[in-house]
Amino acid sequence: MLKLYSFPGTVSLAVHIALEEAGADYELVPVDFLTNAQRSPEYLAINPKSRVPALVTERGVLTEAPALMTYVAQSFPQAGLAPLDDPFALAQVQAFNTYLCATVHVAAAHRHRGYRWADDPAAIADMRRKAPLNVAEHFELIEAEYLAGPWVMGQAYTICDPYLYTVAGWLKRDGIEIDRFPKVAAHFARMGERPAVRKVLAQLAA
Amino acid sequence: MLKLYSFPGTVSLAVHIALEEAGADYELVPVDFLTNAQRSPEYLAINPKSRVPALVTERGVLTEAPALMTYVAQSFPQAGLAPLDDPFALAQVQAFNTYLCATVHVAAAHRHRGYRWADDPAAIADMRRKAPLNVAEHFELIEAEYLAGPWVMGQAYTICDPYLYTVAGWLKRDGIEIDRFPKVAAHFARMGERPAVRKVLAQLAA
Repeated sequence: MLKLYSFPGTVSLAVHIALEEAGADYELVPVDFLTNAQRSPEYLAINPKSRVPALVTERGVLTEAPALMTYVAQSFPQAGLAPLDDPFALAQVQAFNTYLCATVHVAAAHRHRGYRWADDPAAIADMRRKAPLNVAEHFELIEAEYLAGPWVMGQAYTICDPYLYTVAGWLKRDGIEIDRFPKVAAHFARMGERPAVRKVLAQLAA
Repeated sequence: MLKLYSFPGTVSLAVHIALEEAGADYELVPVDFLTNAQRSPEYLAINPKSRVPALVTERGVLTEAPALMTYVAQSFPQAGLAPLDDPFALAQVQAFNTYLCATVHVAAAHRHRGYRWADDPAAIADMRRKAPLNVAEHFELIEAEYLAGPWVMGQAYTICDPYLYTVAGWLKRDGIEIDRFPKVAAHFARMGERPAVRKVLAQLAA
């Protein structure tokens, strides 16, 4: 059985939803960020990068959300979560998730994890101030260019959708009104009605 | 024919090498970062994110280096650049490239593009100071955990190799001696001897 190391409020939610959509048999293992469990020797043995998500499979551990999303899609092809055999369409899917990972998520992380990139408290404060502006700018681009609707890639629900839902879910804590981006807001609401998402949220609230 | 929008010194080199390794028919189109051509209306029509690489295909434009690397591998399967039909092995490949993209490249960008995440000159200076320390720490992890040798994934040369070669090529300008990481240094030298890499470097020097 797959084991997903995860923590509420992190990007592990995207993989959690994807596993649920795929009908995978998985176990959720919380990594308590509040007690810095991600830096414990036990967890570093699983993921030396001390991040979540990490997915333990029969063949070993996999990390990095975009890679895990494609892994879930490819491991459960009957769920149809990605255009696996169409290199162009798959690259569009992967490009969208990479943008969320390497640009949007990174921008958001400057609000609360600025210590990664600077030590001076004034520098960290300046990043914290600027982060929501960057995040909003990236969501403007998603709204204008990359959300075909009703799902990210158009008619087909893919691994882009739980990823966007997860990152859009952070807007509120960044002080950004999701309604500034009507297509993103409608997508977020649409996602919230999917049985897999409801099940995952109920599981996390339990 | 594929068109690769690129600029020397950027991550487009990884895709350039992959195209060459794949035996692809492609044209290189320089985007002159020195004159900010990546922000011109012409280029924004190609890639609204104003970054390179962008790859123009018969079906449209693709962006984001990790997505492009997998696209090249999947479009030219005879080149054997990725374990396309093995979800676990492909996820390992993609996780490595995602780490380079979202963690190592991002860390390096704080040295010379700190203005993305802060406005205060003192904050930007503090990021510039810390960036090489972060980059070195990430390369320590690659050295210890993720470079099987002789190639990143072991015996098989994959799309991880040109990506690592590209990012390792930035160590010098970050003031980091590549010899601190003996496996990375040997990999870098090994890459430099591949005919595809020699051809690409000659093309860029011309």
